[in-house]
Amino acid sequence: MICTIQSKNKTQLIDITSNIQDIVRSSGIGQGLCMLYVPHTTAAVTINESADPSVKDDILMIIDTIIPWKAGYRHLEGNSSAHIKSTLIGPSELIAVENDQLVLGTWQGIFFCEFDGPRNRKVHVHLIKEKFQV
Amino acid sequence: MICTIQSKNKTQLIDITSNIQDIVRSSGIGQGLCMLYVPHTTAAVTINESADPSVKDDILMIIDTIIPWKAGYRHLEGNSSAHIKSTLIGPSELIAVENDQLVLGTWQGIFFCEFDGPRNRKVHVHLIKEKFQV
Amino acid sequence: MICTIQSKNKTQLIDITSNIQDIVRSSGIGQGLCMLYVPHTTAAVTINESADPSVKDDILMIIDTIIPWKAGYRHLEGNSSAHIKSTLIGPSELIAVENDQLVLGTWQGIFFCEFDGPRNRKVHVHLIKEKFQV
Repeated sequence: MICTIQSKNKTQLIDITSNIQDIVRSSGIGQGLCMLYVPHTTAAVTINESADPSVKDDILMIIDTIIPWKAGYRHLEGNSSAHIKSTLIGPSELIAVENDQLVLGTWQGIFFCEFDGPRNRKVHVHLIKEKFQV
Repeated sequence: MICTIQSKNKTQLIDITSNIQDIVRSSGIGQGLCMLYVPHTTAAVTINESADPSVKDDILMIIDTIIPWKAGYRHLEGNSSAHIKSTLIGPSELIAVENDQLVLGTWQGIFFCEFDGPRNRKVHVHLIKEKFQV
Repeated sequence: MICTIQSKNKTQLIDITSNIQDIVRSSGIGQGLCMLYVPHTTAAVTINESADPSVKDDILMIIDTIIPWKAGYRHLEGNSSAHIKSTLIGPSELIAVENDQLVLGTWQGIFFCEFDGPRNRKVHVHLIKEKFQV
């Protein structure tokens, strides 16, 4: 399954929790694992607080400070900063599923991380039927 | 299964290798994968050297330097630094299991990363029966 | 399965996409997930652009700037910088497999990250037969 995303800014954290939850719920998997995978090299996926939207602003602010847009990069497309952020945050997350629901912590939401937008983006959703119960 | 942790400091790397190993051993899974998941937004899990405890001090020191506690953050709870660290290190790890044992490298241990303690914390342990052998 | 790597420099990103692709193709798994795991504490694995080799130079350059080799570290072996980089990038990646092929994005390649070479290194390759299709 694929979750499509339209980013609107150069850098943006987009809460996709309900999108992924809908896909998982309608799959009928019951119990297992959900793997999210971003097939882009200037984007990523992360899990963090979704209750206060200022948390994602702070994440973007510090990451932009650590990995500046201009730093004598060799890559000629001018978006090396976005590539580096993609590697630091990473292209995938794994989340448990029980009763067709993502098992997230109380404050956790799933965020698509746009580092070189605006663009049309995708998140691949893979479900694994967990076979071992203890 | 759940591994419970009581952190004692504001920031702290806690070696939970033997805790996870005990859970895996008593599961009787044999062979598969072990997924560790932290359901918190100001904590994380990582894998690094467990032989010399000074490695974890150095990790915490540099991460505190990169992501300072005060930096004009918008989030009013005052713990944005902890949220950002959580996203950079990440909430999960995957480790292979053979003969009911975690397959870690010679120097590798598993560390719960407390970034806003002291608190009572949890790590969820999920086991996947690996189905494909070559 | 194990993919062996001989790094040549102190820090180096090595494109191992074709190595992993060969292992997956010859496995005959068909459809599932491929988990890559680095059993070292001064190395990592990441996914990023493989088309322009200057991207990996830029990644290494910024990471060396963020996490310097000298910073008053306590660990006496002198390679704390490499340990910290290993934790920030992480020891594993998960990639979907369809028709015995890794499902990577158009620009994505898999890179072994050497942070304290030159050394003989390994990447463990685990395959999971995905059981749930929707």
